[in-house]
Amino acid sequence: MDHTTAILLEVFVIFAAAQVGGWLARAIRLPDVVGQIVAGCLIGPSVLGWITPSEPLEVLSEIGVVLLLFAVGLETRLDDVKRVGGSAFAVGVIGVVIPFVCGAFWAHSLEPNWPRSLFVAAAFVATSAGITAAILKEMGALQRIESRVILGAAVIDDILAMLLLGVVVAIQAGGSLRIGTLVVVAAEAVGFVLVVGWLGTWMMRRGSKWLDHTRNPLSPLLVVLTLCLGLAWVATRFGLAAIIGAFLAGMIASELRQRVQLGEQMQPLLALLTPFFFVLTGAKVELAKLANGEALWLLLAATLLAIVTKLAGGWLGAIRLGSRSALIVGVGMIPRGEVGIVVAALGLAAGVFGDVLYAVIIAMSLLTSIVAPPFLALLLKNRDSELV
Amino acid sequence: MDHTTAILLEVFVIFAAAQVGGWLARAIRLPDVVGQIVAGCLIGPSVLGWITPSEPLEVLSEIGVVLLLFAVGLETRLDDVKRVGGSAFAVGVIGVVIPFVCGAFWAHSLEPNWPRSLFVAAAFVATSAGITAAILKEMGALQRIESRVILGAAVIDDILAMLLLGVVVAIQAGGSLRIGTLVVVAAEAVGFVLVVGWLGTWMMRRGSKWLDHTRNPLSPLLVVLTLCLGLAWVATRFGLAAIIGAFLAGMIASELRQRVQLGEQMQPLLALLTPFFFVLTGAKVELAKLANGEALWLLLAATLLAIVTKLAGGWLGAIRLGSRSALIVGVGMIPRGEVGIVVAALGLAAGVFGDVLYAVIIAMSLLTSIVAPPFLALLLKNRDSELV
Repeated sequence: MDHTTAILLEVFVIFAAAQVGGWLARAIRLPDVVGQIVAGCLIGPSVLGWITPSEPLEVLSEIGVVLLLFAVGLETRLDDVKRVGGSAFAVGVIGVVIPFVCGAFWAHSLEPNWPRSLFVAAAFVATSAGITAAILKEMGALQRIESRVILGAAVIDDILAMLLLGVVVAIQAGGSLRIGTLVVVAAEAVGFVLVVGWLGTWMMRRGSKWLDHTRNPLSPLLVVLTLCLGLAWVATRFGLAAIIGAFLAGMIASELRQRVQLGEQMQPLLALLTPFFFVLTGAKVELAKLANGEALWLLLAATLLAIVTKLAGGWLGAIRLGSRSALIVGVGMIPRGEVGIVVAALGLAAGVFGDVLYAVIIAMSLLTSIVAPPFLALLLKNRDSELV
Repeated sequence: MDHTTAILLEVFVIFAAAQVGGWLARAIRLPDVVGQIVAGCLIGPSVLGWITPSEPLEVLSEIGVVLLLFAVGLETRLDDVKRVGGSAFAVGVIGVVIPFVCGAFWAHSLEPNWPRSLFVAAAFVATSAGITAAILKEMGALQRIESRVILGAAVIDDILAMLLLGVVVAIQAGGSLRIGTLVVVAAEAVGFVLVVGWLGTWMMRRGSKWLDHTRNPLSPLLVVLTLCLGLAWVATRFGLAAIIGAFLAGMIASELRQRVQLGEQMQPLLALLTPFFFVLTGAKVELAKLANGEALWLLLAATLLAIVTKLAGGWLGAIRLGSRSALIVGVGMIPRGEVGIVVAALGLAAGVFGDVLYAVIIAMSLLTSIVAPPFLALLLKNRDSELV
């Protein structure tokens, strides 16, 4: 009881800080989420110490980002993504290869040890779609061709990142690399995405009528929220991020006739729960461990490398859309967010990383999430809307 | 990460079970919440063991019931409650005195030890407004005179229960009872309710215009949600339940011109989060510890005592509304819910209760919450709507 009360205070503080941060960010024409992340950094353990990331807060944060990607999926139709499939695939693949190769050579130059270097490189790979998706949604840009490419690429990116992580963990542990196992894992993940995408879309087109028969206006929402939470969990069983499952759930729910009503009903849910994701992202930046010259240089190098390599990968993959659009896609792919954090935690647990490298990789992942949004917002603003 | 994933599964299971349970309950013309509580009992540790109450789930449950009472407050205006103030006060006071006195004599007859008996009696006292409020809301009965009496009485009841708990803990610990301290505690709690009620109402009547100026249709919601979470926490600082603070926040927000829009925006939030409260309530029933004759008799006696004494107290307090309305009020006050659980936990920690008495008090608190809703729903259905 007492503990729950203490967390109730943190819940209030996080929510209030997110409102103030979002409001201040809007006042200086930055996206809300930037203000929320910075507010999180301020009230987190590094500065004011008003909140401490804990399991209940992590769960609220996870539910928040799951609902966010679901709502983004709700504005993304499978047919539209299929139309940009080629670009999305190219962005996903090139956007993984370049950061991985460059990251590996950079880590090798710091300490010549290939298994360890490949492990470090894995932290440079995966894009975290949550923050970019929030910006695209906030700016009303989800119908743009660049947004579809980014979201499609994020799915491919996540599959590749998961496979790469499996490979580097196996190499680092000294185990033999079982190509057969990897192929099965890859096939399962791809199969999950395809089955949910095609079968789900087909079922939903038929489900609209059935949902019309229910008299309760909340019934469609309850059905699709169940689907969203279910697929989010199933995605993790296939080694993918929960948000990929939620995005797919949203995408197939976008076939429902009730999608406009559903989109409106999602608004209060996002308003309540996404602040926990952004504030907690900010609160995880551990400034104290980075407060020395060497660590700061390392962080600067890692962050620049992470930004430049992903930007290049995204840009090259999407170049057929024109260089300006390719730039938007590249910037949109920059945030690493939680995947880098997972790699860092695995590396620390396996004894591959020391304290400093661990803090650097986490800070790099978060810095990319803080740096990208203002640029993305700027690029989107200075350009007329271009629908597919 | 892995642990968060495990909880994501539980979140899905709870949400899905609540939907199925609610749907089955509706099919046999029972309130949704009954189905959700029973579903919780089934998937909880006692039967299927699919979910285990844990801190993150408790926090979701707490946020769910806080939002529920906020939404209930949103449909309750201070002026309407003031009009039934006399009855609400009588129901609150008599509904505490009768269960406490009878509970104490019953416990004393089991084992003649006054400090312990008074402690047990405290578990019989406090009404948990969450479940009754859900039924009243579900049946569209919040505008009825009986609903206002119940909600007003719940606030008074909570203040008295908190004071009584302070007294019995002090007596049991053998410490001297400081009347001065108690008076201060009581004055603070009453002061909190009055200040929030009057000052908040006054401010909100002026706040409507200011909130109109914001262009974002979600802004009023964000402001009142911040208020709701804030007052929920402040209430706990004054020794009251978080839901009392949330109810007061909703009641003052009901003065806003945006209240209809706010009520609609609350619907998806309630749909997502209240199932965690009801399912977890059910999941906490520990059937195993009650699976012997003696414990079952004890439970039966305690539950009957809890029901009859509260029913009598509520009925006597509200008798001036007519005996049928008084019956509705009495039944509405029956659920004990979490307050009984808190008392039981305190008693176990202090070594006052053994394992069996602990399980009995928890089960009694939950049984009252399961038994009352169908009767309340029946009484509300068999009667034409009677507005104040």
